[in-house]
Amino acid sequence: MSNPTAAMLVIGDEILSGRTRDSNAHHLAKELTIAGVTLAEVRMIADDHAVIVDAVNTLRATYDHLFTSGGIGPTHDDITADAVAAAFGVAIGVRDDAAALLSAHYERTGREFNEARQRMARIPDTATLIDNPVSIAPGFTLGNVHVMAGVPNVFEAMLASVLPGIKGGDPLLSQSLRVKRGEGDVAAPFGALAAEYPDLSMGSYPFQQNGVMGTNLVVRGTDPARLNEAMTRLAALFA
Amino acid sequence: MSNPTAAMLVIGDEILSGRTRDSNAHHLAKELTIAGVTLAEVRMIADDHAVIVDAVNTLRATYDHLFTSGGIGPTHDDITADAVAAAFGVAIGVRDDAAALLSAHYERTGREFNEARQRMARIPDTATLIDNPVSIAPGFTLGNVHVMAGVPNVFEAMLASVLPGIKGGDPLLSQSLRVKRGEGDVAAPFGALAAEYPDLSMGSYPFQQNGVMGTNLVVRGTDPARLNEAMTRLAALFA
Repeated sequence: MSNPTAAMLVIGDEILSGRTRDSNAHHLAKELTIAGVTLAEVRMIADDHAVIVDAVNTLRATYDHLFTSGGIGPTHDDITADAVAAAFGVAIGVRDDAAALLSAHYERTGREFNEARQRMARIPDTATLIDNPVSIAPGFTLGNVHVMAGVPNVFEAMLASVLPGIKGGDPLLSQSLRVKRGEGDVAAPFGALAAEYPDLSMGSYPFQQNGVMGTNLVVRGTDPARLNEAMTRLAALFA
Repeated sequence: MSNPTAAMLVIGDEILSGRTRDSNAHHLAKELTIAGVTLAEVRMIADDHAVIVDAVNTLRATYDHLFTSGGIGPTHDDITADAVAAAFGVAIGVRDDAAALLSAHYERTGREFNEARQRMARIPDTATLIDNPVSIAPGFTLGNVHVMAGVPNVFEAMLASVLPGIKGGDPLLSQSLRVKRGEGDVAAPFGALAAEYPDLSMGSYPFQQNGVMGTNLVVRGTDPARLNEAMTRLAALFA
C-alpha cells in the first residue's frame, strides 16, 4: 500500500568543506518522487572508511533502498567500493567484467589501463554492475545498495540505468497555490484544512518578491482525486 | 589541538520531495571551514516529530555543535522547536522575550500578532534567542544545538549572529592545482604524495571543459607551511 522508502549517502570531504555544492541529492529527490519512492533521509559524510561502513549498514537496514554518490574514482581518496564491501562482509577485487569494459575503453581512447584505473574495476563479489554511458567506469548494486559516481552527469546517467529496475509505488503528486498573504495570516485556516486531510502532506513556504510578501501553499499526495478536492477547498479559503 | 566538530540537520519535506533545493548546508560548510570548525555530517530529514527528536539527540551527543535549519515558522508543519525541546526534555511555551520582539514588529508593520504568529515565540525553557535581523522571529540556542530558519537569507543572517560566539580552531585552508591529465594518470603519484602528508587531506576532482579532460588536485589543511610545502612538491610532480 505505502510506497517503498529510500535514503541517500553523499560521500566526500569536498562537500563538507564547502568546496563543492552537491547537486545529486536534489536530482535524486526529484526522480524518486516521480518514481513513487519516498526519499526519507539524506546523509552527507566524509571520506572515512569506518564512517561509511557504519552509515551504509544503518541506512540499508532502515530503508528499502540506499543510493550512494561519490568515492568510486581511481585515486587514493576513492574508498566507497571497499567500504560497501566491508559493510556487507563480502570480498572485493578487480573483477573481470568491469576490467573488460574499462580496458576496451582505454584501448579505444589510446590511454593506458594502469593500476590506478584498474582500481575502478574493483567490484564487490555478487554485486551487479550499473551501466555508465558517460565515462564507462561502472557503479554497482549490492543487495539494496546502489553505488554511483559523484560527478553529476555520471550520477544522473547511472541513476537512469538503475531506476527502471526499482519497483516504485504511486508517484507523489503536488499542487501549489500562491497567495499574497503572510504565512502568519494563512496558518490557522491552512492548518485546519491539513488536519482534515491526514493522508496528504501540506506545507507553506513564504516568499518576498518586489516588496510583496506572500506564501506558497503546497499540497502533496498520491491520490489525484483527494489532491484535487483539497486544492478546491484551499482555493475557496483564500479566494 | 584538533578543531571542534559540527553536524547539520536540514528539516523539511520540501527538500526530500525535490520541490526545494537546499542551499543552507553549502553555506554552513563554507562558513564553518573559515571558522575552523569541522563539519562532519549533514542529515536531511522529514517534518516528523519522532525522527527529529532522534536525530537531534544522536547528533548533539556525537558532535560539539549541531546546527538545524527549517521548521520554525508559524504553520502546522513547523514542528522543530517543539521537537528540540522534547529531545532535551525541557518545557516549551510562548516566551515573553520572543513575544515582545514579535509583537513590536507586527505593531510597527500594522499586522496582527495572531495565534499563528505567537507560535514563532514558542522557545524552549533556558534557550537563548538567536537574533533575526531579516524577519524578527528568532532562532534559539539550547545547549550545543543552534536552531535556525530554513529560508536562506534568514538562515544566513542567524548564522552570522551565532558564529562569533563559537570558539573555532584553525581555519581549514585549501590550495588547488589544475592539471590537464586524466584522474587515472595522476592517481599514482598523487596518492604517494598524500601518503607522505597524513596531516593534510588531498582530493582529486576530474573535469571536462571544451573537450579537454583534466583534474583539479586539492590539498587541505590547517598548517600554512605544510600546505605550501606539499603544493610545491605537487607542482613539481606535474610540471
